[in-house]
Amino acid sequence: MTSFKPPDPHFAKRVRTSFDRQQFMHTLGASLLAVEPGFVEIELLINPAITQQHGFVHAGAVASIADSACGYAAFSLMPADAGVLAVEFKINLMAPATGDKLIARAHVIRAGRTLTVCQAEVVGVTADGEKAVAIMTSTIMTVRDRSGVQG
Amino acid sequence: MTSFKPPDPHFAKRVRTSFDRQQFMHTLGASLLAVEPGFVEIELLINPAITQQHGFVHAGAVASIADSACGYAAFSLMPADAGVLAVEFKINLMAPATGDKLIARAHVIRAGRTLTVCQAEVVGVTADGEKAVAIMTSTIMTVRDRSGVQG
Amino acid sequence: MTSFKPPDPHFAKRVRTSFDRQQFMHTLGASLLAVEPGFVEIELLINPAITQQHGFVHAGAVASIADSACGYAAFSLMPADAGVLAVEFKINLMAPATGDKLIARAHVIRAGRTLTVCQAEVVGVTADGEKAVAIMTSTIMTVRDRSGVQG
Amino acid sequence: MTSFKPPDPHFAKRVRTSFDRQQFMHTLGASLLAVEPGFVEIELLINPAITQQHGFVHAGAVASIADSACGYAAFSLMPADAGVLAVEFKINLMAPATGDKLIARAHVIRAGRTLTVCQAEVVGVTADGEKAVAIMTSTIMTVRDRSGVQG
Repeated sequence: MTSFKPPDPHFAKRVRTSFDRQQFMHTLGASLLAVEPGFVEIELLINPAITQQHGFVHAGAVASIADSACGYAAFSLMPADAGVLAVEFKINLMAPATGDKLIARAHVIRAGRTLTVCQAEVVGVTADGEKAVAIMTSTIMTVRDRSGVQG
Repeated sequence: MTSFKPPDPHFAKRVRTSFDRQQFMHTLGASLLAVEPGFVEIELLINPAITQQHGFVHAGAVASIADSACGYAAFSLMPADAGVLAVEFKINLMAPATGDKLIARAHVIRAGRTLTVCQAEVVGVTADGEKAVAIMTSTIMTVRDRSGVQG
Repeated sequence: MTSFKPPDPHFAKRVRTSFDRQQFMHTLGASLLAVEPGFVEIELLINPAITQQHGFVHAGAVASIADSACGYAAFSLMPADAGVLAVEFKINLMAPATGDKLIARAHVIRAGRTLTVCQAEVVGVTADGEKAVAIMTSTIMTVRDRSGVQG
Repeated sequence: MTSFKPPDPHFAKRVRTSFDRQQFMHTLGASLLAVEPGFVEIELLINPAITQQHGFVHAGAVASIADSACGYAAFSLMPADAGVLAVEFKINLMAPATGDKLIARAHVIRAGRTLTVCQAEVVGVTADGEKAVAIMTSTIMTVRDRSGVQG
């Protein structure tokens, strides 16, 4: 992995403050673990409220934590006055999302002035270890000077 | 659009029964509107519990209803003993997800024996009309003889 | 489909001039058919030089004409001093690419200041008619003031 | 990376024989480098015949070698009587494709009975080193008992 130098030294605080404002993450039961330059980790405790018809975690919930992880990995490298918006993402669902919890880990692959590319993997975690559940590639746009999109 | 003849005449009931078992749709506040052969429509009332940090609906929630709509559009064309699993999807987020409610409309584009391709659009709805919010393309696998994946 | 008003009245000439400079299209045997505001059509005569190991047209050749069609659909709506670059695309290959020729038809779905979203379908054509071969969704960036990327 | 045990001990010969039958790879000027279990590397010498209007390698040519690399990475893990077909792929184009040559490197991420997921990166190579040009994620289907699709 490339190592990144974030332009805002307070990037981790900025990421955590913004994550706390994502009400949807609270609704899911997700919480923020590691925040490093260009890397973010989100945990989701598996519970019935996020399941689909077979009892697995809904692909949309899996995608939601991967999307937030990608967005915040990109956001960690933004200057203090810029926000981010996901432009598009693709997710491959490789195994049923089961276990005690899911963890999404997202890395910045390419940090550009306008567009950042991130990849995330989502794993299902049990006492026995981790298994790969999904992989995502996401394109994220830097947003400046747009009212309401600075954090 | 191609017109499809579903192998199971009770497809609509099967789709509605399965949707009701998706606890995540209840958690989001989503409900099922139209169910036709190869076409499904899902509505999501916008509420604070599904927002991200700027107050828009979280991209993951947008993706969730589009994913369910695609899955059930495919499921509407399955024989009575088969289930479906999303293999992968891609979503382009074209405008902030705002309005009074979102509607996801998914069509089957190609119905194969093993794989079905669906596309969905998500619109934001206000009293003034609809605006395009997102488009998704999804690949869905037919699942037979796998315990717990028949509905 | 939305109807678009191109800012450059000479958009069709600009598209055709740029297409002629894509040496790869000549290498494939592709030619430009319709050019309308936000819509472009490219034809590819099927020949052994573009096949894969089973004798079908290689997925990469299918993607190539769909990508060019998407790029030029976006380019048709650009001001005269702007160029375009594909940021990412996804293609679903729905049937073997066979027939006498392929036609890729691309529409602009969303025209933004920085990013344009296009969708293309590719059909295989024989005397008996057309069959769907592939669908693509593409994200295209407007490029200004970058040396060598104006056409 | 996971290490894979190919069911066919002659996998490398089978991959090389099949690659030689991809006339499109010859048309592009691509050749096969490493073939390992679940890993394939393809090289493309940059030449004017594969360029787009700005003189960079056309995104479709970049996608073509990445697609073939993904397909053959999956194929390396197939039993001797099975073929592969790409179902869909997504590519992010991160930098103009320039240099003396491109190299696509593809790994199997998940090897399933019906579907295999691969990821590839494409780098541009000069005397000074490599730079990242593109990343692809691809879904590949195992094909059995279908006339003409065994190699």
